[in-house]
Amino acid sequence: TVAPLAAAPADDGQWLMPAKNYAATRYSAMNEITPANARNLREVFSFSLGVDKGQEAAPLVIGSTMVVVSAFPNHVFALDLAREGAPLKWQYDPKPVPAAAGVACCDVVNRGAAYADGKVVFNTLDGATIALDLATGKEVWRTQLGDIMKGESITMAPLIAGGKVLVGDSGGEFGVHGWLTALDLGTGKIAWRAYHTGPDDQALIGPQFHPFYAGDRGQNLGVKTWPSDAWRIGGGTMWGWIAYDPGTQTIFYGTGNPGPWNAQARPGDNKWTSGMFARDVNTGQARWFYQFTPHDEHDYDGINEQILLDMPFAGKMRPVIVRPERNGYFYVLDRRTGQVLSADPFGPVNSSSGVDLRTGRLMVNPAKETKLGQVVRDICPTASGAKDWNPSSFSPRTGLVYIPHENLCMDWMNLEVNYISGTPYVGAEVKMKPGPGGNRGALTAWDPVRRRPAWELPEDLPVWSGTVVTGGDLVFYGTMDGWFKAVDARTGALAWKTKLPSGIIGQPISYRGPDGHQYIAILSGVGGWAGGIVSGPLDPRDGSSALGFVQAMTDLPNRTTAGGTLHVFALAH
Amino acid sequence: TVAPLAAAPADDGQWLMPAKNYAATRYSAMNEITPANARNLREVFSFSLGVDKGQEAAPLVIGSTMVVVSAFPNHVFALDLAREGAPLKWQYDPKPVPAAAGVACCDVVNRGAAYADGKVVFNTLDGATIALDLATGKEVWRTQLGDIMKGESITMAPLIAGGKVLVGDSGGEFGVHGWLTALDLGTGKIAWRAYHTGPDDQALIGPQFHPFYAGDRGQNLGVKTWPSDAWRIGGGTMWGWIAYDPGTQTIFYGTGNPGPWNAQARPGDNKWTSGMFARDVNTGQARWFYQFTPHDEHDYDGINEQILLDMPFAGKMRPVIVRPERNGYFYVLDRRTGQVLSADPFGPVNSSSGVDLRTGRLMVNPAKETKLGQVVRDICPTASGAKDWNPSSFSPRTGLVYIPHENLCMDWMNLEVNYISGTPYVGAEVKMKPGPGGNRGALTAWDPVRRRPAWELPEDLPVWSGTVVTGGDLVFYGTMDGWFKAVDARTGALAWKTKLPSGIIGQPISYRGPDGHQYIAILSGVGGWAGGIVSGPLDPRDGSSALGFVQAMTDLPNRTTAGGTLHVFALAH
Ligand SMILES: O=C(O)c1cc(C(=O)O)c2c(n1)C(=O)C(=O)c1cc(C(=O)O)[nH]c1-2
Ligand SMILES: O=C(O)c1cc(C(=O)O)c2c(n1)C(=O)C(=O)c1cc(C(=O)O)[nH]c1-2
Repeated sequence: TVAPLAAAPADDGQWLMPAKNYAATRYSAMNEITPANARNLREVFSFSLGVDKGQEAAPLVIGSTMVVVSAFPNHVFALDLAREGAPLKWQYDPKPVPAAAGVACCDVVNRGAAYADGKVVFNTLDGATIALDLATGKEVWRTQLGDIMKGESITMAPLIAGGKVLVGDSGGEFGVHGWLTALDLGTGKIAWRAYHTGPDDQALIGPQFHPFYAGDRGQNLGVKTWPSDAWRIGGGTMWGWIAYDPGTQTIFYGTGNPGPWNAQARPGDNKWTSGMFARDVNTGQARWFYQFTPHDEHDYDGINEQILLDMPFAGKMRPVIVRPERNGYFYVLDRRTGQVLSADPFGPVNSSSGVDLRTGRLMVNPAKETKLGQVVRDICPTASGAKDWNPSSFSPRTGLVYIPHENLCMDWMNLEVNYISGTPYVGAEVKMKPGPGGNRGALTAWDPVRRRPAWELPEDLPVWSGTVVTGGDLVFYGTMDGWFKAVDARTGALAWKTKLPSGIIGQPISYRGPDGHQYIAILSGVGGWAGGIVSGPLDPRDGSSALGFVQAMTDLPNRTTAGGTLHVFALAH
Repeated sequence: TVAPLAAAPADDGQWLMPAKNYAATRYSAMNEITPANARNLREVFSFSLGVDKGQEAAPLVIGSTMVVVSAFPNHVFALDLAREGAPLKWQYDPKPVPAAAGVACCDVVNRGAAYADGKVVFNTLDGATIALDLATGKEVWRTQLGDIMKGESITMAPLIAGGKVLVGDSGGEFGVHGWLTALDLGTGKIAWRAYHTGPDDQALIGPQFHPFYAGDRGQNLGVKTWPSDAWRIGGGTMWGWIAYDPGTQTIFYGTGNPGPWNAQARPGDNKWTSGMFARDVNTGQARWFYQFTPHDEHDYDGINEQILLDMPFAGKMRPVIVRPERNGYFYVLDRRTGQVLSADPFGPVNSSSGVDLRTGRLMVNPAKETKLGQVVRDICPTASGAKDWNPSSFSPRTGLVYIPHENLCMDWMNLEVNYISGTPYVGAEVKMKPGPGGNRGALTAWDPVRRRPAWELPEDLPVWSGTVVTGGDLVFYGTMDGWFKAVDARTGALAWKTKLPSGIIGQPISYRGPDGHQYIAILSGVGGWAGGIVSGPLDPRDGSSALGFVQAMTDLPNRTTAGGTLHVFALAH
């Protein structure tokens, strides 16, 4: 059987970090709501976030307090679950610099806060990390990490592990020098920063670094795998997910795409972009690295979620990382070494033909390599990937990973591009379209042992929300036109759905309320990269706007409206 | 027994105008939902309006289409009730001039559309009336009526009666020359316009004019009751409600306050402000006028709802108008003549001591008359009235009028003021505070025959939503902190409540869905004058901002957030 790393402790009914636990299972053991009774779900309260932009955050539940962060301007609200109608306990306005909105590539989103030690910690689009006192909402510390003048913003949810707050930057489309930074949870002081391109000392690569594959060994590869100095503006941001193994005090996370998108401007493997690091949480020193997409030509950021499992492989239990990667493969990696145990496509892929398990290297399809001034057609997956940032969940009861994802292909033409600090640095014209079958999205229940889907639900629109799976064997997810759905975790059969005011790109959670009952919470509020055509404003007549996404989504403005609301559901009782 | 004017026809389950019918009863005969089963109400769908400002509109239901108008920028949405989740049929963006927001006194609200003859008609804040084809959402005609450069805006819902679209302007706090305009429903051409100050020919006062009281008789009183030329900038707008008697082809409506607020700048009765007109719908010619508040000193606009009833009075049935007026009295007027049959306070009033039924004149309390440079304290009701625009409902089953209202008092100081076209013209500093008892609002079930409340529910916050009453004997209303409530129409006992994402200042409706079941709809989205502190932005530290309302509402930002969502409820079935 497949089990989450022990780091997923017994469920106390709270939700303290977006991924629920360090193993990042997004599994809630609560089992009051089941496929048999889900039709009795009803909304028990809702709360307006006061901003109609893409709402990607996971609400947190700490004791009887719910905490939620809005899209920019990143207001934080604490609601009292112990009182009728969950009234506000406090709210906090970080007053971020308005110009920050100008350096967000993909809507002014925020993926949520994290809680530890009496503190709610979150990031602002304009590059600050802020800790608030849970009881009062007062600022405990605030540390400025990013510089919007250089194109740096922050959209990710921090992870708090080993007394550190881990924060990465955004700006892969602005020529930033991507990093992950650790702050001291108590003081907000910077403990270490690891850059994702450049010399080894900046990348925190030293004696502890033992990558599995030969191609990742050698000195200063973060410089040598780039044309001279290109690494300085080479992206490799970190705006997604981090998992943590407390036993070995190791964090696992992936890095963003190399910039610019025009890959002909940066021959070489472009390390350490579009790959995964294991690092010592205390020092930041790298333990290993694996590159999903060397010399990425298609914006295949490597920042997706990783789930830490203990899983049988070739007859023995192995400590693994499973990861539905943007380039289209479901990877199973050995957590100790970064060795690829398997890599299977979970959606249509033609930009590569698989992973060479001997070298670990992605086998690129020359026919889909991008070209200057020439449109290469029907590349699958798109720049946004077979799946984007929106996270999967894993149920120890079913052994399945519930992957919310997309099915899109694209036409791509490289363009000359010059770097100007703080402005877009892309160099490509892209147009996206529905992939094979015409359904632009799907929810796939992936069996990591059998290496194939147990079941799959096609969706007309890209599935841009996360999933949560429960002890009642329900998977919750949302659609971009506003349906919030519960499906049977074993069969995919629809158990319940309700129509929310705006499209859903948030992360559902499940928690135990002060009354002992199970609750489900989700934000509505369409946006993000895929929904920018609604939360924009963008011109739907320009198919290449929103970095090419608009073309695939021209019907969305006829199907949903911008919004921003927290919704909480429970069984009628 | 009390019955609505025959103009309230048998209920077909639709909702074609905000007041439901020409008698303006806001009574839905549907009786599936009752005090006994209301606890099974649950939200069936919701829809984001995409703008987080005060949402005051009543949704309309025409066949299986629901139509709703958002706050500025006044987007119109048509939803298909016959399809699962009520998807969008069409949406229409009038692209109003952004500067219009600068001449709205009390948030950028809109009170809804009206339907007739295949057309959805609504007004934009920047002063246009627009007819859309219900089937397609295409513009049929658009007529510019107001001029924002003069401070004219439009927030009211039009009434369609006798083939005319009736529209009034806003801008009483900007020195406008208030009017009601009739447009031809087919073409949008202006049929007539009646001004509410100035010479008789502009006021459409002619041979048919027979006011009941002597004080309203004489030539050009709209000029003579003002200092020279002050009538030209004297307000008397019309941003509220109109009722209609098809039998006599008469419309009934009231006029706004005289400007400026500093009444010492305009000695005289200031006709025809703060009073009520009966007019021939075809020609606009006045039939009678009654002035609730001559020489208004307290911003007692006369634009509230009037309900047309046939009611016993002194032993005989009389055709009446009942009207909970801003100055604090519940008036019963003879519909044929404008005679005041009774006027009883429905909340605390000290600015006057009653109505002299012989002369019809309000008996002003000299101690609460306003003074230049001197603060007069504890005037009740406030400038916003014992009730503001948000409309009451009437049930023929209970004979009661369900009045959503306020309980506030104020301190007032007159200030010198100069008129500059298109800018605020107020001349007073006002600070509001809770009235006697401390509850800032109430829902009162008023018995118009016995001239007293049947029951009353205090509310902590001003009740700024409308009410609807149903054949199932439920009254629905909302609170400014987001509770949507159903109470027993006979007793006031709470039957159900639910917490919506933002405070409620909208107008609830009840309709029959395509499946034959009863539905209840309401907008959430706090704002309006009372909620400007949330939908603002206004500075909560300046109690006199929002024309003095902020002082009474400093707790609101801790209790709700700005929003804008349509909600639809039905019994679980
Ligand atoms: O390279 C970057 O720094 C960066 C940042 C972000 C972001 O911060 O939201 C996205 C992306 N890239 C990106 O490639 C992408 O697909 C994406 C989708 C979204 C979203 O919120 O829907 N953000 C981002
Ligand atoms: O005199 C006017 O022209 C005028 C306009 C409006 C409006 O258009 O909303 C209001 C008022 N006055 C007013 O006095 C008032 O109390 C008020 C409340 C509201 C609201 O929407 O909550 N509007 C208005």
